[in-house]
Amino acid sequence: MDCPGFWADPSFMRIPKPLSNLIDSFQKLPGIGPKSAQRLAYYLLHVPTSEINGFAESLTNLKKNIILCSVCKNASESDPCDICSDVNRKKDKIMVMEAPLDVLAIEKTGKYDGVYHVLHGKISPLENIGPDEIYIDDLIKRLERKEISEVILATNPTMEGDATAMYLTKKIKQVAEDILVTRLGMGIPTGADLEYADEVTLTQAIVGRREM
Amino acid sequence: MDCPGFWADPSFMRIPKPLSNLIDSFQKLPGIGPKSAQRLAYYLLHVPTSEINGFAESLTNLKKNIILCSVCKNASESDPCDICSDVNRKKDKIMVMEAPLDVLAIEKTGKYDGVYHVLHGKISPLENIGPDEIYIDDLIKRLERKEISEVILATNPTMEGDATAMYLTKKIKQVAEDILVTRLGMGIPTGADLEYADEVTLTQAIVGRREM
Repeated sequence: MDCPGFWADPSFMRIPKPLSNLIDSFQKLPGIGPKSAQRLAYYLLHVPTSEINGFAESLTNLKKNIILCSVCKNASESDPCDICSDVNRKKDKIMVMEAPLDVLAIEKTGKYDGVYHVLHGKISPLENIGPDEIYIDDLIKRLERKEISEVILATNPTMEGDATAMYLTKKIKQVAEDILVTRLGMGIPTGADLEYADEVTLTQAIVGRREM
Repeated sequence: MDCPGFWADPSFMRIPKPLSNLIDSFQKLPGIGPKSAQRLAYYLLHVPTSEINGFAESLTNLKKNIILCSVCKNASESDPCDICSDVNRKKDKIMVMEAPLDVLAIEKTGKYDGVYHVLHGKISPLENIGPDEIYIDDLIKRLERKEISEVILATNPTMEGDATAMYLTKKIKQVAEDILVTRLGMGIPTGADLEYADEVTLTQAIVGRREM
């Protein structure tokens, strides 16, 4: 039987091919297991054709109409992107992010008026991702070309994110010693309970304490 | 802004249209909230175009190539479906199911050799679904036409599923009094702990007790 992904399960031999193909596509998505994929595919059976075609269209249009901004590498419809071409954004402040969704999270705060640089990953030796696999060179070129006063490193506070931040700091200082390199503040998140905070977070909170 | 569903969230104004369209499509699926929809759409940015096109194709092919079997109303590629046209299946036993996924669950056991009838729903006055909205008439016609010895009611053990089973029993008895009408056995599921079973399940287990 030619049912990729389901050959181990005899019951899937009963699933019609158009359904099993769709289940297979859903299952490749992150966080969607075999059961959810099945449920989604069968759910769509009862959805109007026009809506399903709209879904299919939005999929095919994704890669066609989305490009990476040549300046900041964020996903965008135009080049340069809305943020890079916005005259109200301060071009001398660059916040370095791991992914486009992180840009969205910062934009939601409405408290940042600079521009971004999206690395599209982080240095991760375990996954064979070195500095050349992500958009670090492009960042360095931006720093060489323009008058940048501050680079805010906003990679995630994980082992890989921290390592990437450290690597970037060294690299940036080599290019221009006078650029201020900062890291997003770390500590206890709003609404959290001290009692349940882990030691590393508490240590960061103590180190990063501020005057009232 | 023409971003259906996201107008309430100002941050979405920063999401390029092709991405927000896709997020919107994902969000319409059951069990996928705004955050997951975002994550899925941005995830697909890094997936090869060929794979995304395959996904889109499997969506458009779904409605094109899947039909309901004219006999049992199960989702199928052919009419009659694989099960209805299987000479090894006993045609005098019909198991009545709420949905195609339930057929799959029974097929997985490999212990049922009869055929099915899929209602595509259950009687649910609260949702305005009466006996005419689901494939009950087709079941009755099957019973009138052919020599059926047993109908197994396998609707879910919920309030609506039980009500549907009761309605069906009455209806079937009107057509042919000699047809054996059974309901799937109910009780404690395998691997469960008596201590944590609810009262209704335990009552069903006591009523449905069997000789060793």
